[in-house]
Amino acid sequence: MGPPFMFSALSPSIATVARILHQQMGERVTTNESIREQHSHGEGWKRASLPALVVFAEGTEDVALVLRTCHEHGVAVVAFGGGTSVEGHVTPATDAISLDLSRMTRVLAVNADDLDCRVEAGVTRQSLNAHLRDMGMFFPVDPGGEATFGGMCATRASGTAAVRYGTMRENVLGLRVVMADGRIVDTGGRVRKSSTGYDLTGLFIGSEGTLGIITEIQLRLHGIPETIAAATCQFEDLADAVRTAVSTIQVGVPIGRIELLDDAQMEACIAYSKLEDYRPITTLFFEFQGSPEAVREQVEMVEAIAADNNGLGFIWSTSQEERTRLWKARHSAYWAALAAYPGRNGIATDAIVPISALTELITGVKADIEASGLPAPIVGHVGDGNFHTIIMVPPEPDGYERAMELDRRIVRRALALNGSCSGEHGIGSGKMEFMAAEHGENALEVMRAIKKALDPQNILNPGKLLPPAPDATAA
Amino acid sequence: MGPPFMFSALSPSIATVARILHQQMGERVTTNESIREQHSHGEGWKRASLPALVVFAEGTEDVALVLRTCHEHGVAVVAFGGGTSVEGHVTPATDAISLDLSRMTRVLAVNADDLDCRVEAGVTRQSLNAHLRDMGMFFPVDPGGEATFGGMCATRASGTAAVRYGTMRENVLGLRVVMADGRIVDTGGRVRKSSTGYDLTGLFIGSEGTLGIITEIQLRLHGIPETIAAATCQFEDLADAVRTAVSTIQVGVPIGRIELLDDAQMEACIAYSKLEDYRPITTLFFEFQGSPEAVREQVEMVEAIAADNNGLGFIWSTSQEERTRLWKARHSAYWAALAAYPGRNGIATDAIVPISALTELITGVKADIEASGLPAPIVGHVGDGNFHTIIMVPPEPDGYERAMELDRRIVRRALALNGSCSGEHGIGSGKMEFMAAEHGENALEVMRAIKKALDPQNILNPGKLLPPAPDATAA
Repeated sequence: MGPPFMFSALSPSIATVARILHQQMGERVTTNESIREQHSHGEGWKRASLPALVVFAEGTEDVALVLRTCHEHGVAVVAFGGGTSVEGHVTPATDAISLDLSRMTRVLAVNADDLDCRVEAGVTRQSLNAHLRDMGMFFPVDPGGEATFGGMCATRASGTAAVRYGTMRENVLGLRVVMADGRIVDTGGRVRKSSTGYDLTGLFIGSEGTLGIITEIQLRLHGIPETIAAATCQFEDLADAVRTAVSTIQVGVPIGRIELLDDAQMEACIAYSKLEDYRPITTLFFEFQGSPEAVREQVEMVEAIAADNNGLGFIWSTSQEERTRLWKARHSAYWAALAAYPGRNGIATDAIVPISALTELITGVKADIEASGLPAPIVGHVGDGNFHTIIMVPPEPDGYERAMELDRRIVRRALALNGSCSGEHGIGSGKMEFMAAEHGENALEVMRAIKKALDPQNILNPGKLLPPAPDATAA
Repeated sequence: MGPPFMFSALSPSIATVARILHQQMGERVTTNESIREQHSHGEGWKRASLPALVVFAEGTEDVALVLRTCHEHGVAVVAFGGGTSVEGHVTPATDAISLDLSRMTRVLAVNADDLDCRVEAGVTRQSLNAHLRDMGMFFPVDPGGEATFGGMCATRASGTAAVRYGTMRENVLGLRVVMADGRIVDTGGRVRKSSTGYDLTGLFIGSEGTLGIITEIQLRLHGIPETIAAATCQFEDLADAVRTAVSTIQVGVPIGRIELLDDAQMEACIAYSKLEDYRPITTLFFEFQGSPEAVREQVEMVEAIAADNNGLGFIWSTSQEERTRLWKARHSAYWAALAAYPGRNGIATDAIVPISALTELITGVKADIEASGLPAPIVGHVGDGNFHTIIMVPPEPDGYERAMELDRRIVRRALALNGSCSGEHGIGSGKMEFMAAEHGENALEVMRAIKKALDPQNILNPGKLLPPAPDATAA
């Protein structure tokens, strides 16, 4: 695991912590440059910064040891899992430790009779679903990439199946969390509902490693539906496609997934995922689930809605192969967009609005994109009112600022329509500037009071999620 | 509104607050004895204690004024809505103000296109559903009694439809909350999901008025299903009925409701609700929802499961009249039980376990009941793993203690099976003794830290939900 451990380059308090941890954890504590580089950033294009130290935890007790030690010496810690964050969540503060939980990959229990299971924070949804497949169950929340459950909880992740199954908020029963001072706390449990005290599980979900570090998760599971059908429908007009999605939700079709890819995104996907039988125009991808009769009913309803909105023919199939091909293409959308513009970075927006405002938002955003002159494919979870614009950052010196200006314009549009700046990616460092406009200072003050109560030294992922108070003059 | 306002009987700090509020709110601030008596207790049989003062709020600004004033003078406040709590939530601390929100009954907005609405805290689910009926929508969470939405949020209420629609946790999008010092905070919003900061909405839901007072609620709504069918099935054996419910959930039938009434409860309901065509044996009440085909499919599946478990014939009907009759009988179960034992008080237990442990729990509880010699009908939301035992308190001097001993035995059984002491009634003062056993001291310390951060003077419903720290020697 790289060269011998280097104390000499560290600042005093980190060096002390490093010595203590190195003594107890050996080579799982490292200053290796390339490992530090790996832990300096997520997938999004946000400024990277190297951790002073990377520590690999193999269980809750390791995490508790690290936090106890860091708490005593005032050293900052950021948790690292799959490294798939797009908002800078995992980028360490100066002189911080990156605490890597990706080796915590045990599935601790599966309770088929209760449709629940318990996993360590480093398990990915892909590996859990492989583990569960023969038992007829699955876990539905599917953010892009090989995200770990720890990170999915910390960012309140969702994905293409949230329209039917909800987000991490709705699919976690309980957590094991290590607090800033190293205390281990169990929240929630295994029951489906409970009215016994503050919802700590809900508080830690979406807290982005700023209130505690999640080490174990009790997850809800779901039975694999009897029948699953995939379908697509293409549209000449973007607004017609959005209206089809909106009506599908409004009439109450219990749709499995409903995703929109605009013309630019389809062009990228056709090239990247070899969807030669498609035209580069706006397309809806659907998934229907249930008994064969229920699926047929749903398909008929949505087909009629699409026809009413000038859909160019509704193609559906129950073949596993076709479904896999389509959803793989959908999950590769971000990579397809990057591949279509070689050498450019992408900034993914994540606006969400109440469904009735979605047509107005998307058509407005499309006009903003055209006015900006920047390529920016649109892809998203339109059944939730949520979509991403993958803004391709031009290579010019002012490219980043131009891309960010488009991002801000999209957020402002969403907020003006009672929306939110992030449906699922989280705040990290990338969306902090919108927190006050979205929540108001009074709500942020409540969040700050909670943060201060649970992490008085501000060692847990400092500089993320909560912007400083307006009158704060020092950190 | 009763006799003139009496300052003389009040202790100094309350008298100061009373003078300030009386000046601004006039006769909406009262010391009237019978009004104070009304505000001294909920529906459950918990020790009552009179508030020093009752204040009627007519809007968020009133609540803010009251809290600002009480914060300044260190006076305790407990919110009062429908007064339907069964765990002593609304019973005031000594020298406290009961802040009545039941006049805040405006439906502020209904957004049919987004299936959401905004209500003031004093609106009841019955009045909201009457308001919505012609729009083809409804709100599904249905605790017993005429509960208000403020109280339903504060106790994280559920009811018979939670098995399909979830609890208040899953059906609230956002809140307006007045904090201890009178600041007004908006949490959440109107979007279906968001990853922007701590889940304050979730934190206030279930916080029982100890962190803030909820004044407005943004609710999710649902479309009224195309077809609704009611069904019942009777069983000679309690365990067979529970197994039928458990299998129904385990095979994934999207059941609308599934409620169990044991022999004692059925006997009471037959008398109270004139269900003469039923025998006084264990009975399951079902509701099926969906398209006509979906309902037929579901009925067939559940009928087969019931037959496998010695069900004595499955009777179903789509008639509105029959449904209303059955569910009215179900909702009257608590009153039916009280009526069956005239002159006795009832203590309602609220245990919940993972569904796989439900048969073991209920059969164990039934044995405990028989051993106790106390009448205690069982009724509950078996699809959630949750049920109530209505323990009839005998009139003897040790009657209350005997009833509580049975209650404790039931809770201990549930906790031993990875359960919780309350599925939906909450902690209040009645279940505080179980908090440490259920959550562990570390989790309680986190809850106490949050309470202290948001209500440093402990003026919000003191003495509820959180037991004092084990080493606390003074309040």
